[in-house]
Amino acid sequence: MIIVMKSSATKEDVAKIKEGVEAKGLRTSIVVGEEQTIIGLIGDTTKIDPRSLEVVPTVEKVMYVSVPYKLASRHFHPEDSVIDVSGVKVGGGNYCYIAGPCSVESEEQVIEIAKAVKKAGANMLRGGAFKPRTSPYAFQGMGSTALDILLKAKEVTGLPIVTELMDESHIEEFEEKVDLIQIGARNMQNFSLLKELGKRTTKPILLKRGLSATYEEWIMSAEYIMANGNPNVILCERGIRTFETYTRNTLDLQAIPVLQRMTHLPIVIDPSHAGGKYWLVEPMAQAAMIAGADGLMIEVHNDPECAMCDGAQSLKPEKYEALMTKIKKIEELR
Amino acid sequence: MIIVMKSSATKEDVAKIKEGVEAKGLRTSIVVGEEQTIIGLIGDTTKIDPRSLEVVPTVEKVMYVSVPYKLASRHFHPEDSVIDVSGVKVGGGNYCYIAGPCSVESEEQVIEIAKAVKKAGANMLRGGAFKPRTSPYAFQGMGSTALDILLKAKEVTGLPIVTELMDESHIEEFEEKVDLIQIGARNMQNFSLLKELGKRTTKPILLKRGLSATYEEWIMSAEYIMANGNPNVILCERGIRTFETYTRNTLDLQAIPVLQRMTHLPIVIDPSHAGGKYWLVEPMAQAAMIAGADGLMIEVHNDPECAMCDGAQSLKPEKYEALMTKIKKIEELR
Amino acid sequence: MIIVMKSSATKEDVAKIKEGVEAKGLRTSIVVGEEQTIIGLIGDTTKIDPRSLEVVPTVEKVMYVSVPYKLASRHFHPEDSVIDVSGVKVGGGNYCYIAGPCSVESEEQVIEIAKAVKKAGANMLRGGAFKPRTSPYAFQGMGSTALDILLKAKEVTGLPIVTELMDESHIEEFEEKVDLIQIGARNMQNFSLLKELGKRTTKPILLKRGLSATYEEWIMSAEYIMANGNPNVILCERGIRTFETYTRNTLDLQAIPVLQRMTHLPIVIDPSHAGGKYWLVEPMAQAAMIAGADGLMIEVHNDPECAMCDGAQSLKPEKYEALMTKIKKIEELR
Amino acid sequence: MIIVMKSSATKEDVAKIKEGVEAKGLRTSIVVGEEQTIIGLIGDTTKIDPRSLEVVPTVEKVMYVSVPYKLASRHFHPEDSVIDVSGVKVGGGNYCYIAGPCSVESEEQVIEIAKAVKKAGANMLRGGAFKPRTSPYAFQGMGSTALDILLKAKEVTGLPIVTELMDESHIEEFEEKVDLIQIGARNMQNFSLLKELGKRTTKPILLKRGLSATYEEWIMSAEYIMANGNPNVILCERGIRTFETYTRNTLDLQAIPVLQRMTHLPIVIDPSHAGGKYWLVEPMAQAAMIAGADGLMIEVHNDPECAMCDGAQSLKPEKYEALMTKIKKIEELR
Repeated sequence: MIIVMKSSATKEDVAKIKEGVEAKGLRTSIVVGEEQTIIGLIGDTTKIDPRSLEVVPTVEKVMYVSVPYKLASRHFHPEDSVIDVSGVKVGGGNYCYIAGPCSVESEEQVIEIAKAVKKAGANMLRGGAFKPRTSPYAFQGMGSTALDILLKAKEVTGLPIVTELMDESHIEEFEEKVDLIQIGARNMQNFSLLKELGKRTTKPILLKRGLSATYEEWIMSAEYIMANGNPNVILCERGIRTFETYTRNTLDLQAIPVLQRMTHLPIVIDPSHAGGKYWLVEPMAQAAMIAGADGLMIEVHNDPECAMCDGAQSLKPEKYEALMTKIKKIEELR
Repeated sequence: MIIVMKSSATKEDVAKIKEGVEAKGLRTSIVVGEEQTIIGLIGDTTKIDPRSLEVVPTVEKVMYVSVPYKLASRHFHPEDSVIDVSGVKVGGGNYCYIAGPCSVESEEQVIEIAKAVKKAGANMLRGGAFKPRTSPYAFQGMGSTALDILLKAKEVTGLPIVTELMDESHIEEFEEKVDLIQIGARNMQNFSLLKELGKRTTKPILLKRGLSATYEEWIMSAEYIMANGNPNVILCERGIRTFETYTRNTLDLQAIPVLQRMTHLPIVIDPSHAGGKYWLVEPMAQAAMIAGADGLMIEVHNDPECAMCDGAQSLKPEKYEALMTKIKKIEELR
Repeated sequence: MIIVMKSSATKEDVAKIKEGVEAKGLRTSIVVGEEQTIIGLIGDTTKIDPRSLEVVPTVEKVMYVSVPYKLASRHFHPEDSVIDVSGVKVGGGNYCYIAGPCSVESEEQVIEIAKAVKKAGANMLRGGAFKPRTSPYAFQGMGSTALDILLKAKEVTGLPIVTELMDESHIEEFEEKVDLIQIGARNMQNFSLLKELGKRTTKPILLKRGLSATYEEWIMSAEYIMANGNPNVILCERGIRTFETYTRNTLDLQAIPVLQRMTHLPIVIDPSHAGGKYWLVEPMAQAAMIAGADGLMIEVHNDPECAMCDGAQSLKPEKYEALMTKIKKIEELR
Repeated sequence: MIIVMKSSATKEDVAKIKEGVEAKGLRTSIVVGEEQTIIGLIGDTTKIDPRSLEVVPTVEKVMYVSVPYKLASRHFHPEDSVIDVSGVKVGGGNYCYIAGPCSVESEEQVIEIAKAVKKAGANMLRGGAFKPRTSPYAFQGMGSTALDILLKAKEVTGLPIVTELMDESHIEEFEEKVDLIQIGARNMQNFSLLKELGKRTTKPILLKRGLSATYEEWIMSAEYIMANGNPNVILCERGIRTFETYTRNTLDLQAIPVLQRMTHLPIVIDPSHAGGKYWLVEPMAQAAMIAGADGLMIEVHNDPECAMCDGAQSLKPEKYEALMTKIKKIEELR
């Protein structure tokens, strides 16, 4: 951490800051510039709140040198993390292909889709049970009934189950029934929930990026889960909010190579929610895999025109199969 | 709701959509344009998910005519809502002035500040007990102990208490001890929490705007609470995320007149968190009140240089008093 | 265009609007809803400024049905445009690979790089002569001297030249010396310049997307050039501004399939400027080509550590060659 | 400027950077931290392009300590600049109230409005002659004819004239006829134009903020004009682009106190373009003045329902007069 003093700061002002910081167990190094003096802090700076320094009238600004996360950092954990989702490995060269309907609607629907996506090459099954909807009047999902339907589809196909958790009161039920617990974009900074996911389960967590979150904020949310006891986190990019209104959100594929530098956690791409249009899924899924993603999460529906939600972004099973054929060729190029 | 057909759509395509929509109990009106045909939907369109129509290959796009909220809408409730916070009225010409420290640190601190802000004209006391922090290693607040300290300050000063709830497991404790329950920006779309606030309490809720939320999304979150049974919602603008990094966030004061058109709920401004710098509080607080706000929420600290968090944005009590003197003059101009 | 009346509007209010619109040569169709009446406008609505209607007190809002561009629209020009850049075709299955240094520094430098990128598979040469810099104190480019250096490199290699025009006073010089005239992101809405590019030249224009521009705004800028007489426009996505500060900008690859629906103009991707880091170029260039781009623009420098600007994002010639080998394999997959 | 080395950097790597920097005439100071070494640069760092350092493989990142502008900086020019616009002073306690129609439509219109706004308290007249429009098919302004109409209104009322320049070919005509030359938001980073405004005129410039510009970028654009010879720059905040679509843009009033710290140049607020709705003008204009603005630019039209553009955001003269009465009371509070 570096403290930049105002140009009006005196030697006494600098000495006072130096003392205060050293009292907290850090060492300092002073650089006297022509316009301004800067104080370098040496030691574990995570305990110092930079805002408590910025308030000092003689301080111009405070800048971070090191990243504020440790457990998720590639720096302290150079090799890729490989997360085991009930036998399906993710990361370190192991790809996960999650597919399934946006919402669970019926047992027949889910089992039919599960069989189809398995045949096409998917190795996990997704399906919404509890749905985060911006309107209180919109369909909110079938809840626990949907979890049981997903379990039946797992029995039939062997595919591990991925579904979204919205509420800590359901953690035990998810621990029992679900293989990969998804945390949605709107809960990325629901810190209470993140803590409980660290404390009460070691099931893998699929942590979606918040709509306006920076990479660092996203990794800090993973760090919350990890620091509370659960190291099994997979990151999922699902599009960020931009000024563009033609698409639902803007998919950020630079996230793939950047996060692979910042963290050892796997990164999965969800092109269905990002664009919100089914015809964007194929080009973006291919682009994600050639750019180095550890997997894809794709919505597949057997009757998109009648889906209770998000049909606009779902692929039919035959289109998913065609896509997976292309994806396999891209795997060979990597 | 209006359905715009693609220019390639045939009469049969239009008829098919018309039938489907009318089967759901709505009436339709067809406008045949030179390039495209549009279908106007007449009746209660809240039950129709526009995305289920967008997926139809012959549909170009779907546009909303009416707003998707009812209970929060000014249209159906023309007069201002007046929310009663343990005797302090907010809205409809009644101003609330919430002040206090970012975090509760000790009984002495809180009582001293409470007395000072009451003397200066504040009519509610704020203080953080449970703190949402982006780092799991940062101070997370004193929790329930802090609530008891706030209660003592209430006994001494009579000021109702405002503090943030992060977790539905604390609703009963807040119901008992807190007068105005704050929901933070990062939980604005924590829909599980919003539902429980509607079902399990009728205590007033101070709903902060999400960092990247639109006005409509913000009102929809209020609608969530209201539709689940709690009509007592106060909105709080606290700055939105923009590309500017000099300030913490950008305060959106246009929100005041716009929301007063959209909704009957009161709107309060938090200039402390928006700018993140104490010297922005005075000009922005005055600007908010002249623009028509129903109140202010301001951080006041007796020793900003030592605050455990957010000292940079806190006013000292004497500065708060000077500000309130100016605010009183602005009240007279309104 | 659709006019949504306020719910308080009377039949007379609706009739008044109807008359006004019909006086401008359009036909109307009225849809009387339960809450609101809407007026559909039939005919050429490009002459009506929607803002002149929004001001009418009885009007709630005005919505566009058709897009506001014609010449650039895929709707009126279904087949891909193929732009001829001094013999190199772009679009409709013809790929352009533009490569070269950020800034022209010397004849030796440019010729060496030109030979290297040609050998690797590039079919156009880029090089900055006039540089848009945010600081008036930064290196502003070698100007006309640089154009002459680029011409020599063209003589040697046969590669057509791409370079940025910042100022209409240079149009004649560019007309004479340059093969593809680049318009930078910061000039995307320099409407005076766009008009002159339409009127005074038919040289192909490489129109970069503005840092915060929507797809429609970008296409409207192309429409400016086209409506003034120059149909030869190639679009170039170079990253948009987002909240992320780790990268320079965020590359929007969804732009590729979306623009291919909206317009018939070719779209080229510049991964060098988007991310601002050389190690992002390879994954993003591959992702762009698999997603359907018509070409790439990539910075290549023989000594990135000493480049006068933007070295951080340049590839060395050997890395560019390795990348082009991969790109050729991706071409085969398309 | 501070260079943060990677944790893997050796002493030799640090020494190499140190030598390179010192070769450019700067001194260095090394801080050896536990994880990383940082190098402080002492001297005039404006000549060093930070990107040329970031490319070095052993460098983690480069951070600015000082601001990159000098002439516009409050640091080197502590007192407020007072800009003289043909006798009307702006800044340092002198307020400018610019009012007039969006577009010049006729002599009668402009003279009538000019008289009305002068009576209400305006001290400058605005009126669009050359209009930047996103559509090539929209009304582009009356051009030079409009300038002559404005001159007649100036003869009648004595009000100095403010109008937008889009093109360097008009600088001489503006020099002759216009008192305050407006540069629009979309040209804020038209660096060629900024340079010419510095070189070819000393007429005051009203520099509008770009739709997505940061404070620093905006000040750097002022610095461009100043560094090229014209010190007379007034800044104008006119709203920034955000995710909100209900309003045209979002007015950033924090810009007022922040810019007053960063620069000595006056700052004027344009609430008409920011919100795009006439009923937002009154609350935002008052808010701007209580927050410390040096003036206002407001659209006034005698027949908003028929204005050729932007009528939706114009005030009628009587509303402007009522607003100015309120503004005068706010002046007394400052």
